[in-house]
Amino acid sequence: MSLLVVGSVAYDSVDTPAGSRVEALGGSATYFSIAGSYFAPVSILAVVGEDFRAEHLSLLESHGVDTAGLERHPGKTFRWAGVYGTEDLNTRETLRTELNVFAEFSPVLSPELRKKPHIFLANIDPELQLDVLRQMDTRPALVALDTMNFWIEGRKSALTSIVEAVDVLFVDEGEARSLSGEVNLRSAARSIMDLGPSAIVIKRGGNGVLLFNGDSIFAAPAFPLDSVVDPTGAGDSFAGGFMGYLAATGDLSEAGFRRAAILGSTMGSFAVGSFGTDRLSALTRKDIDARFRAFAQLSQFAPLGEGESLPWSDCR
Amino acid sequence: MSLLVVGSVAYDSVDTPAGSRVEALGGSATYFSIAGSYFAPVSILAVVGEDFRAEHLSLLESHGVDTAGLERHPGKTFRWAGVYGTEDLNTRETLRTELNVFAEFSPVLSPELRKKPHIFLANIDPELQLDVLRQMDTRPALVALDTMNFWIEGRKSALTSIVEAVDVLFVDEGEARSLSGEVNLRSAARSIMDLGPSAIVIKRGGNGVLLFNGDSIFAAPAFPLDSVVDPTGAGDSFAGGFMGYLAATGDLSEAGFRRAAILGSTMGSFAVGSFGTDRLSALTRKDIDARFRAFAQLSQFAPLGEGESLPWSDCR
Repeated sequence: MSLLVVGSVAYDSVDTPAGSRVEALGGSATYFSIAGSYFAPVSILAVVGEDFRAEHLSLLESHGVDTAGLERHPGKTFRWAGVYGTEDLNTRETLRTELNVFAEFSPVLSPELRKKPHIFLANIDPELQLDVLRQMDTRPALVALDTMNFWIEGRKSALTSIVEAVDVLFVDEGEARSLSGEVNLRSAARSIMDLGPSAIVIKRGGNGVLLFNGDSIFAAPAFPLDSVVDPTGAGDSFAGGFMGYLAATGDLSEAGFRRAAILGSTMGSFAVGSFGTDRLSALTRKDIDARFRAFAQLSQFAPLGEGESLPWSDCR
Repeated sequence: MSLLVVGSVAYDSVDTPAGSRVEALGGSATYFSIAGSYFAPVSILAVVGEDFRAEHLSLLESHGVDTAGLERHPGKTFRWAGVYGTEDLNTRETLRTELNVFAEFSPVLSPELRKKPHIFLANIDPELQLDVLRQMDTRPALVALDTMNFWIEGRKSALTSIVEAVDVLFVDEGEARSLSGEVNLRSAARSIMDLGPSAIVIKRGGNGVLLFNGDSIFAAPAFPLDSVVDPTGAGDSFAGGFMGYLAATGDLSEAGFRRAAILGSTMGSFAVGSFGTDRLSALTRKDIDARFRAFAQLSQFAPLGEGESLPWSDCR
């Protein structure tokens, strides 16, 4: 099955403990579509300015991304600049946001895009996310949503409407807490699931991911990397791997969601290995299979067999 | 095989988002010995004051803990008071520390204790930890160590000597970084292992544990609890379950260490479910087996079979 992503394409300037990069190719739709493209056909709906470079359009197309919905508008491409702290790469400070052509982004879906069975609504204004969903011919088989504290604080009502309409929500710990009003993550997930989504993915950066799916909870670790170059785009690359797996297999069972979460973590672990999309866009099938296998090595242990018990002391 | 723990017995007064408790039974040796007692015989070497309550001695003895090494000295038992933050139960502020009889603690091992094959040196002055190890008749089969930033900053030389002499080191992320001078956790673990330990356990509270053992890395999740009442003692309870498993089975293989880490996480997850040792000390074999099984449910996924590949898109 094929995937539609609606989100941003941007040029990011970042400072991290590993160095800095000016105007790397970025944006939620970019990371998502490259990560997902390894597994399933991806169509992108986004806007760029006149300055969007031909090599970056070629990069997306070389990944088989359908760019018919990548509108080019007069003006400049969205730009973001930020800096990541020394120890905790999970926190970042935004230095500059220039929306440029993204300020007027009003996604219009072509007849082809309206039929897509799997859709990822990346982090944009919840009114636009609602508008995209309304344009679909029929309700897609799987709708996933990302958002951020800016919308939770400023557009609570529209955000609640779109949360109610989706199957999967991607949030970080702080977002899960502010959206639900619950401090405990398990309570937060349950409270958000009561609104509508059947699955909540809580992204914890270097601490991995918690997947709440119905009554089940799955904890996927982060891959312990030798070096993290640039955390930008890790969450959207996770979503690309996650949704790519589900679109490719059509397996929406618990087992499918768990593998999707590991493949998401796999793609996130590649994304942070370089500035921009350099590493993410240069992967082979062998790279991805090997990292996925390494996640099994990282997290598997011998469970108790049927009827088996742990050792028990006779001295008690 | 039997286990020796050298550490503190204390009365803790804590404030957490779930409430507060005055003078709960605590201390590293207390949590460790109760947690470990379910799996293997534990002997405790520690000091208490004249005010140590008979019911608390009985509690240890009812768990089969050998308290012959629990010295009673004139004066008061060690007291600690602290407060845990609202959102992040991983951070705490110490309000008060009264060492009392613990200030003069100078562990002397009886002939029986000098023969113990597995030993846990809980967080005390590294000079004392070195002294305990020197008193052993022969080098124990397994020596594990806990420490804290206070000793890393103030007693680096003695601490380095004891780190060089142990097999397993338990630290949190900040301690791993300050001990090694490395920000990246993988580099930090490697650097500490170069000093001597063959295994490093990095404790991350609600984010689980990373176990570095030789060339292998294992990520154990934390159990997502409905409520965390009091994080005090979680690390020592983890160590008790971890060391208890290894002492009970004698299995020092990678598979044994991984199960030990899950059993450690199991015991830590019980410890935080109440103030003091209330929950930890009231467990049944069924409780522990069930939580251990729940950890498998939490973290297992279907790995790629031999020769199996992830889905791959033909559009690329």
